[in-house]
Amino acid sequence: MILLNDVLILTVAYMKEKSFIVYHSISIQFYFSMISKELFKPILNWPKDSKLPLCVACDVGGSGTYVRLSSFFDESQYIDLPKLKTQKASDLISALNTVSKELKSVAPTIECRGSSLSVAGPITEDTVVFTNWPGQYSNRTLSLSELPTDLFPKNRSKFLNDTESIAYGILAVNRLGTLDKYFEKLFSETSPDGPPVNDRRTAVVSVGTGLGCSLIVKTPLFNRKIVVPTELGHLELPIVGHRNANYQFERELVQHISNHWYEGELAIEFEDITSGKGLCNVYQFLVKKATGKVIPTETLDGAQIAQMAAEKEPLAYKALVIFNQMVIRAAKTISTTMNCDSVILASDNQADNYHIIKDNYSLMKNEFYSFIRPNWLNTITVFTQTKRMNFNLFGTSHIAHQLSKK
Amino acid sequence: MILLNDVLILTVAYMKEKSFIVYHSISIQFYFSMISKELFKPILNWPKDSKLPLCVACDVGGSGTYVRLSSFFDESQYIDLPKLKTQKASDLISALNTVSKELKSVAPTIECRGSSLSVAGPITEDTVVFTNWPGQYSNRTLSLSELPTDLFPKNRSKFLNDTESIAYGILAVNRLGTLDKYFEKLFSETSPDGPPVNDRRTAVVSVGTGLGCSLIVKTPLFNRKIVVPTELGHLELPIVGHRNANYQFERELVQHISNHWYEGELAIEFEDITSGKGLCNVYQFLVKKATGKVIPTETLDGAQIAQMAAEKEPLAYKALVIFNQMVIRAAKTISTTMNCDSVILASDNQADNYHIIKDNYSLMKNEFYSFIRPNWLNTITVFTQTKRMNFNLFGTSHIAHQLSKK
Repeated sequence: MILLNDVLILTVAYMKEKSFIVYHSISIQFYFSMISKELFKPILNWPKDSKLPLCVACDVGGSGTYVRLSSFFDESQYIDLPKLKTQKASDLISALNTVSKELKSVAPTIECRGSSLSVAGPITEDTVVFTNWPGQYSNRTLSLSELPTDLFPKNRSKFLNDTESIAYGILAVNRLGTLDKYFEKLFSETSPDGPPVNDRRTAVVSVGTGLGCSLIVKTPLFNRKIVVPTELGHLELPIVGHRNANYQFERELVQHISNHWYEGELAIEFEDITSGKGLCNVYQFLVKKATGKVIPTETLDGAQIAQMAAEKEPLAYKALVIFNQMVIRAAKTISTTMNCDSVILASDNQADNYHIIKDNYSLMKNEFYSFIRPNWLNTITVFTQTKRMNFNLFGTSHIAHQLSKK
Repeated sequence: MILLNDVLILTVAYMKEKSFIVYHSISIQFYFSMISKELFKPILNWPKDSKLPLCVACDVGGSGTYVRLSSFFDESQYIDLPKLKTQKASDLISALNTVSKELKSVAPTIECRGSSLSVAGPITEDTVVFTNWPGQYSNRTLSLSELPTDLFPKNRSKFLNDTESIAYGILAVNRLGTLDKYFEKLFSETSPDGPPVNDRRTAVVSVGTGLGCSLIVKTPLFNRKIVVPTELGHLELPIVGHRNANYQFERELVQHISNHWYEGELAIEFEDITSGKGLCNVYQFLVKKATGKVIPTETLDGAQIAQMAAEKEPLAYKALVIFNQMVIRAAKTISTTMNCDSVILASDNQADNYHIIKDNYSLMKNEFYSFIRPNWLNTITVFTQTKRMNFNLFGTSHIAHQLSKK
């Protein structure tokens, strides 16, 4: 453990015998003081040619940005900078300019050869509008051309959909052979053998602020795995048949949500339940049903409800059970209709909420296997994340390396 | 017009200044007599190297098989053989052996360099079980190794999912620049400009015996269009919100179908309405509602109901309107969740039923634009086939040529 200053905790870990360094999350006011020369010194030992070439990856999340610098010659040699808790484009640009300046003062011969930023929000011609940042449009809009060209070289930098980068990250960690450490296979007593990432088609469902889904596809005609991002979290949510014992309950629930958001005119989507906002919708419904009171959703917070559920507050717990049941329903719908051999439920949220799946195993299993074509499910496996891991940053870094080889 | 025998009508047509020949559908008893040497003579004029190289494509449909022979050097020089009305693996093998024998007697130096068969049904290790043929499993099971190796060379022959081959066919005809002849853009007064196949992501929905769907995908990271077949026709069918004027009707309809097929326990899928069988389900429901009588679905036939609808029989007509409305609903669900810029509704059925869409335009338009994220639809175009065309055979032939270059 090395202390750079009072707030910085530096953890040195080892992965596949390559060293990497993780700095824990720090609030923005300390960030600039932290971009210390000490931080960058390991880079001086990275392989060189006429320059000291590297790649840059940024995971721009709702609560802050992670930055990874890695050796151009070896993706597995990298440094992760402290999380920058910024939610404003101009702040992020300033911070990255500081990184660039400090880095060059330590290692004047560095040359960035490929960069990628994983983002949530629509991307149009190298400009993104973040949907997971608060405030005005201008605060949330960022163009590649505004970033320091030393770290984000023209024509070798790219914004990447965050669902896409998680899938690339899963592939990257899979190549390292360590994917099993982060996942448990569900319903293994009834499902076939096989690893999380199969050789035909895999769905990666990321259960976070929303419900993201990317497919990892290898067609028989084309011998390489490609990642196809989707918006399948916005599928209309189907409820059980009208003779099923849960029909009345599910119908009331979806009608409540449809009334609240769509004036009862339209069917709700999966994300109306399986997202941070969705968990609030379910909790609101359950509280209303139990007490008659309607808590405004804008005063509710998904993370807080999940915390209450962990403490066994009955309605919050029930809300999180329904949330997870619908994640399994999404896994079933997506894997069958997209013809996947496996589904990977990935995210730190998913890891944190694993206790809900474990403690309600038969409900989850029954959900997965209730289907009009039950035999289709016999060939499908489901994996759920049980240990925290930023797959996003791995995937983004991998794409930065791909761009560097263009 | 050349008469080979009483039942054979030979149509000579021209496409892009390359000749091709189409023989109309003939029943199986005439097939063997028809494999005439005359048929193959045009092949003798095709370009040669040390051999007379060609490719073979088969579209194995529910009612019969189309075979296309094309020049290895030029995909657009081809001969289509008469449709073989076989629904049994052993019959198809015999017929293809006859083709092989007769062909070699006319052109002894022919060499097949790539072959592909478009099929409906699960494919496992070069064996397919046809789901659109009647009878026992053994009658419906076909392996590549059972086919004559002269026409289906080992390692250069492949079964192809029929939904996949339609998408390849759309791409092939698009390259010829003639796709516009077969499609009309729907809702063009409100939708953006743009051709059927766009440069980002296109959904090809084939409305036939079932509801097939393949995606044509080009990712920013990978500069080539690839086809991703799906099973999205098996998505659960969402109904309108409970305050919508059609809620009671739609609810009764899906409950009727769920009762009939799934004991009311499970949600129905799109194909329970948007397929040949589905049209029978809807018609059964409407007749029951109008008269109280329940016509067994096994005595109903989708094609016949479509014919009755064309003759304006009121209940059949209404059934086909609902069928088409749900096709539009599928187009909306698929294009939004799979992030497509265009949807192509393709099939001869779709062309035949175009009058239903035209005559119920505002209903169809309202269906497409009723969505919880209406702005997403502003960037999506929908094209519907208005003229018959076997895209399947074009796509299968294209893949045969790809295999020949391996």
